[in-house]
Amino acid sequence: MPRLAFLGPHATFTEQALRSLPESVGAELVPCAGSPAVLAAVRDGSVDAGCVPIENTVEGAVPAVLDGLVADPPLVIVREALVEVRFALMARSGTKAGDIRTVASHTHGIAQTRGWIAANLPDAEVLLSTSTAEAAAQVARGEFDAAVAAPIAAEQHGLEVLADDIADNPGAVTRFALVAPPGPPPAPTGRDRTTLAATTQNRPGALLGLLTELAVRGIDLTRIESRPIKHRHAEYWFHLDCSGHVAEPAMGEALAALHRRCDQVRFLGSYPRAANGNSTPATTSPPGPVGEADPAAFAAAESWLAGLRAGSFG
Amino acid sequence: MPRLAFLGPHATFTEQALRSLPESVGAELVPCAGSPAVLAAVRDGSVDAGCVPIENTVEGAVPAVLDGLVADPPLVIVREALVEVRFALMARSGTKAGDIRTVASHTHGIAQTRGWIAANLPDAEVLLSTSTAEAAAQVARGEFDAAVAAPIAAEQHGLEVLADDIADNPGAVTRFALVAPPGPPPAPTGRDRTTLAATTQNRPGALLGLLTELAVRGIDLTRIESRPIKHRHAEYWFHLDCSGHVAEPAMGEALAALHRRCDQVRFLGSYPRAANGNSTPATTSPPGPVGEADPAAFAAAESWLAGLRAGSFG
Amino acid sequence: MPRLAFLGPHATFTEQALRSLPESVGAELVPCAGSPAVLAAVRDGSVDAGCVPIENTVEGAVPAVLDGLVADPPLVIVREALVEVRFALMARSGTKAGDIRTVASHTHGIAQTRGWIAANLPDAEVLLSTSTAEAAAQVARGEFDAAVAAPIAAEQHGLEVLADDIADNPGAVTRFALVAPPGPPPAPTGRDRTTLAATTQNRPGALLGLLTELAVRGIDLTRIESRPIKHRHAEYWFHLDCSGHVAEPAMGEALAALHRRCDQVRFLGSYPRAANGNSTPATTSPPGPVGEADPAAFAAAESWLAGLRAGSFG
Amino acid sequence: MPRLAFLGPHATFTEQALRSLPESVGAELVPCAGSPAVLAAVRDGSVDAGCVPIENTVEGAVPAVLDGLVADPPLVIVREALVEVRFALMARSGTKAGDIRTVASHTHGIAQTRGWIAANLPDAEVLLSTSTAEAAAQVARGEFDAAVAAPIAAEQHGLEVLADDIADNPGAVTRFALVAPPGPPPAPTGRDRTTLAATTQNRPGALLGLLTELAVRGIDLTRIESRPIKHRHAEYWFHLDCSGHVAEPAMGEALAALHRRCDQVRFLGSYPRAANGNSTPATTSPPGPVGEADPAAFAAAESWLAGLRAGSFG
Repeated sequence: MPRLAFLGPHATFTEQALRSLPESVGAELVPCAGSPAVLAAVRDGSVDAGCVPIENTVEGAVPAVLDGLVADPPLVIVREALVEVRFALMARSGTKAGDIRTVASHTHGIAQTRGWIAANLPDAEVLLSTSTAEAAAQVARGEFDAAVAAPIAAEQHGLEVLADDIADNPGAVTRFALVAPPGPPPAPTGRDRTTLAATTQNRPGALLGLLTELAVRGIDLTRIESRPIKHRHAEYWFHLDCSGHVAEPAMGEALAALHRRCDQVRFLGSYPRAANGNSTPATTSPPGPVGEADPAAFAAAESWLAGLRAGSFG
Repeated sequence: MPRLAFLGPHATFTEQALRSLPESVGAELVPCAGSPAVLAAVRDGSVDAGCVPIENTVEGAVPAVLDGLVADPPLVIVREALVEVRFALMARSGTKAGDIRTVASHTHGIAQTRGWIAANLPDAEVLLSTSTAEAAAQVARGEFDAAVAAPIAAEQHGLEVLADDIADNPGAVTRFALVAPPGPPPAPTGRDRTTLAATTQNRPGALLGLLTELAVRGIDLTRIESRPIKHRHAEYWFHLDCSGHVAEPAMGEALAALHRRCDQVRFLGSYPRAANGNSTPATTSPPGPVGEADPAAFAAAESWLAGLRAGSFG
Repeated sequence: MPRLAFLGPHATFTEQALRSLPESVGAELVPCAGSPAVLAAVRDGSVDAGCVPIENTVEGAVPAVLDGLVADPPLVIVREALVEVRFALMARSGTKAGDIRTVASHTHGIAQTRGWIAANLPDAEVLLSTSTAEAAAQVARGEFDAAVAAPIAAEQHGLEVLADDIADNPGAVTRFALVAPPGPPPAPTGRDRTTLAATTQNRPGALLGLLTELAVRGIDLTRIESRPIKHRHAEYWFHLDCSGHVAEPAMGEALAALHRRCDQVRFLGSYPRAANGNSTPATTSPPGPVGEADPAAFAAAESWLAGLRAGSFG
Repeated sequence: MPRLAFLGPHATFTEQALRSLPESVGAELVPCAGSPAVLAAVRDGSVDAGCVPIENTVEGAVPAVLDGLVADPPLVIVREALVEVRFALMARSGTKAGDIRTVASHTHGIAQTRGWIAANLPDAEVLLSTSTAEAAAQVARGEFDAAVAAPIAAEQHGLEVLADDIADNPGAVTRFALVAPPGPPPAPTGRDRTTLAATTQNRPGALLGLLTELAVRGIDLTRIESRPIKHRHAEYWFHLDCSGHVAEPAMGEALAALHRRCDQVRFLGSYPRAANGNSTPATTSPPGPVGEADPAAFAAAESWLAGLRAGSFG
């Protein structure tokens, strides 16, 4: 039975994300305290893979995960999941809104429902827990009156949902990654994403050069982030999410180009884009340095080139 | 007396940052609950300026601040401060390490000292507070035995520092910004930073085009971050920190170019770089699309151009 | 009365080009022996301007003119003319095709009608003259039986056209330039061309950098040519024809950028494009490094920038 | 015995160039009247290869050759030769300078020695011949007193050199190409040149995109020329000479990229650079879009990529 770690405890959004993936069927799900612990468990082989949040539309990227992914030994993302971050107010069965004197949640849960709580529970004391799931557990144990957590937490802890969808910014989505040791990547689906990180010399135009290598091969960016490199003044890891798959010629050529150009480049996985992931706009007859990523165009060009090299054209 | 808001309560790292700035001398310092509240107070005129954290070398950018800066009406950064994030363990006078059963801090404080606490206070219960300063206040009030907070908090709350510099990753630095309503920017110093944000059409090469406008004018990037735009699928604000000042011709020309090219562009301020801010490498005889930002070269070129237009050359 | 030199003798295509220009009305037209002589006459002030061929669709650029334009002191193109190079076979009145034993022309005239002569005058001896006009003069003086020359030469020398439009590649066009000492350029018409030449350091990407400066400002190229620089191994003058006018902000900014970037840059004039000159395709919402040259967009951006610098935005 | 055509007649600079090539040893050399005739003879198989001038430092590119190379069926350059264009004044044995009343040469010979003739033979009549070699032949037959031609012509026609090195611009060099039907290219030598031609859509940035494909792969340009495409308004063939060889990965990848991007691309041969051909500057740690062409760097990157695809890294 495969063992899959996740950012615990049980009933977190991360567990919800992991359960949405086919890999979780029949697997043992192992909660870990913190994303670094999940990555460490994958690295030391005590689990087969691990699920961590990678970015949230409200909170941004998760720096500990970005930094953890580029550490050694290598890890790769093999799957992503998008989970709508839906916060509910939950309490023990029979609790009425008027009875609520204490509300607990994780910092992020509090931050994202602050307006709703102020409007609807103006007199309640707000308390922090280490996770939204832990807040629900605390409510179940009778330590607090109510929790702000994922609906799944109400199910798992036998609580009742008093109000659903209470986030001040509805529609926030968190992206989760299933991370594993290096191995053959999932087969290309035609709608894949590749995650990578690279460092370059700290000088003007370095990032431009890196992005040009992607653009001339028709590869689109869906996320970019610079992260300072520890102890190296003014140097950065650039974290990139791109359209395409390492098995495709455009991405293969681009990765090889980054290998030649960059001080360091980390391949962090090619995997299917989750359903409402960012779409890549079609590229037709590209002007400027934007090129063509279509595998068929690459194959035709390769075949033409082989003819040139063999002298059998014309 | 000018009124300056900051991310409170008192004794936070933000207050420490604000107090390091000349603007704080003789000003009334007003703590606000959360960075959004600081920005709101600047926008509604109840304060003259406000200090917020903008990025941390360990925790990354502060998404709420990035998102808040591009909201309306406009705000600009007029000053930055870098504060080394030094965590100390503090307790009421006379407390010994062996007596500590409960340790409180903000989530970030806990996250950044987890290793030290596990090694040195393995049996203590770890509790979350809304800020490191609040944790210190709670210790002073006798609610907990010890707090992980900035040294300044020990001073303000009459606590004793039992152990200093206990972060697992020493040397973390947070960058803070003093934000104000639009007005003439601080005079250029020759070592300035300009912060801006821009959106482009969602298509391959769009970011490349934006960065090319900067690079051809010799402007270097020191930070880049993409932030999804709410309710607009696959579209982004790109947040950029650049070398240079809006009053200089290279940056002026680049900003005007972005205005022509981008769907939206926000100028978020030109201000002196803090002492150990990122340096800009010297650019000598630039190859490729990297150009020349030197104001003297711009002035010489302008003068030559004026001659061409007047027909008085040769 | 203005004096205008041209590549003589009388009745050349160059005279035909010059006569098509408004500047020739009421001017004294002065034939010179060779394009270098025309440029020298303009430089030494013995004429006010001079007309020379600059490129031909069949024969390509005219190297002596390109090299002559970048010499010192500076010269600028103030007008261009396109002349369809139409060759006619002409003879003294009464000559019949069957009588023609000798045909004279300039090398180019012979080269461009070789097929027609072989088919229609297979037995005639072909002789070279220093110009097509001189060939017509020689026929008029009875030295040869027929000449291949511009129809204008038949008129001027009282010859009869036996066959018109005899070029093997009909439709060849020669572009002529009216060259003058530096002075205020002709007013922009909205459909102008700017000619320039530049040298860069001899290293990879140097030309790319130069073209990027044009492209980001939405300036299109209609001709490019590298010419080796005498006595400087592997270094080149790049000769460029571009859309736009030095008085417009896009072209002004681009020229200033080349001044900063290039070892040498020569402005060789802004002038109205001749009627069937190359059109510039419309640029809409440009991706990649292609920018926007529209003066209105430049004006809007300038005005926005002025607001930023004054602090009066938002 | 291989048959090699050349731009005749005998004793031209082209014959001199061809005789400098190893391919001429033991071959039958066949003079043709005009470069188009040389290319036609190669295309129809009546010769095995042909030698034509491709560019001259004074006269520029040879448009008929450029246009002829991109016609159908394909041809490729397999070798280049550089010949210093050294003009000598030659006459029948015993002729003294004072006796010279007529001087004959090809237009280019006259053009390049005009100053010398004016200074040294001010009273001589200057006459045009179809080639410098023909002028020497005419002098040998007693039709004229002297010829301006290549020293080789004096040898071949038994003339005496009265003055050598009489060009007004000494040091002019002509580059010649040995052209053959498609076949396996000469083996790479590490100092090769590749000639190609491409057309792109007529829009801003099209040439920039094409050059970016070369630059990101570290390929340097040594010549560029735009040639209008007949009957297609404002469209061009770009003719390029580049560093590198089709058998090398950098050039192979670049050619394939142009195949994907361009409307048409013609590979016109990879062949050793002639001795004083243009050198490629070393590329070290390239900034901006200039990449790395070193085959070893390509091999290392390929090997790394193969590991990623197989999942066997880390």
